Amino acid sequence: MRKPESVELTVSCALYQDDKILLQESHRKTWAGLCLPGGHVEEGESFVQAIIREMKEETGLTILDPKLCGVKQFPGGIDGSRYIVLLFRAEHYTGTLSDSVEGHNDWYKRSDLPGLPVVDDLLYQLEVMESNEFSEFQQVVENDEWIPKRY
Amino acid sequence: MRKPESVELTVSCALYQDDKILLQESHRKTWAGLCLPGGHVEEGESFVQAIIREMKEETGLTILDPKLCGVKQFPGGIDGSRYIVLLFRAEHYTGTLSDSVEGHNDWYKRSDLPGLPVVDDLLYQLEVMESNEFSEFQQVVENDEWIPKRY
Repeated sequence: MRKPESVELTVSCALYQDDKILLQESHRKTWAGLCLPGGHVEEGESFVQAIIREMKEETGLTILDPKLCGVKQFPGGIDGSRYIVLLFRAEHYTGTLSDSVEGHNDWYKRSDLPGLPVVDDLLYQLEVMESNEFSEFQQVVENDEWIPKRY
Repeated sequence: MRKPESVELTVSCALYQDDKILLQESHRKTWAGLCLPGGHVEEGESFVQAIIREMKEETGLTILDPKLCGVKQFPGGIDGSRYIVLLFRAEHYTGTLSDSVEGHNDWYKRSDLPGLPVVDDLLYQLEVMESNEFSEFQQVVENDEWIPKRY
């Protein structure tokens, strides 16, 4: 049956440069660590335009070739809503890297990530984004535990 | 600012077999014509599991390799909600093709589609789904007209 539901709509982007990836040092108390830049989609906004805007606001860079490469979801939005992240990747940009109120941004060697203080699900999420096999990363709650699943 | 919004969440799939694509003859009065099978995502359901379930229900086939290949949106959901379609493609399946209450299903040569009675935005949408350049198909309303955009 057709029925709308309450959703938090967000976008996030993995920007690559040679063997490096751009990460943001998140200062959030509940989700501290190195993470991908991104944010909420505005009313009526296209998802691609949203990730271009968010990357510009948060990193100073204008990404030129955002490509949808996966979707993430978990039941942790405001008021019990579904939280959705449309996952993009990009390799070309213009502009100069800068920080924002969201945190400090820097390039990190992709192969160094397993030894760095990344947010807890970043490596698992990147595997979905970089894979030809998977399209989705879902966190589900089973017996009061968060279980990561990929499809 | 973080704020959930009202969304109709749906999925749709282009299933290819050699040079053919599986289409459904929709009987909907408001959107008649040949279209991709698909439907609404259930509460808490993964998008990949949703498209596997919908394809099974509507065509009798179990798709084996669904891959997210784009997203579609337009401001036409119930009660003014945003209508989102996560677009998948697949090339492998098991089972025997059958019809459902949604309509008759059949294989059509991809190159014949421009001459067939497809729903009005199908060709434009497929170009986004089959392209390495585009990720999104958005219908926006400007001066009371629906304008298709792709990014």
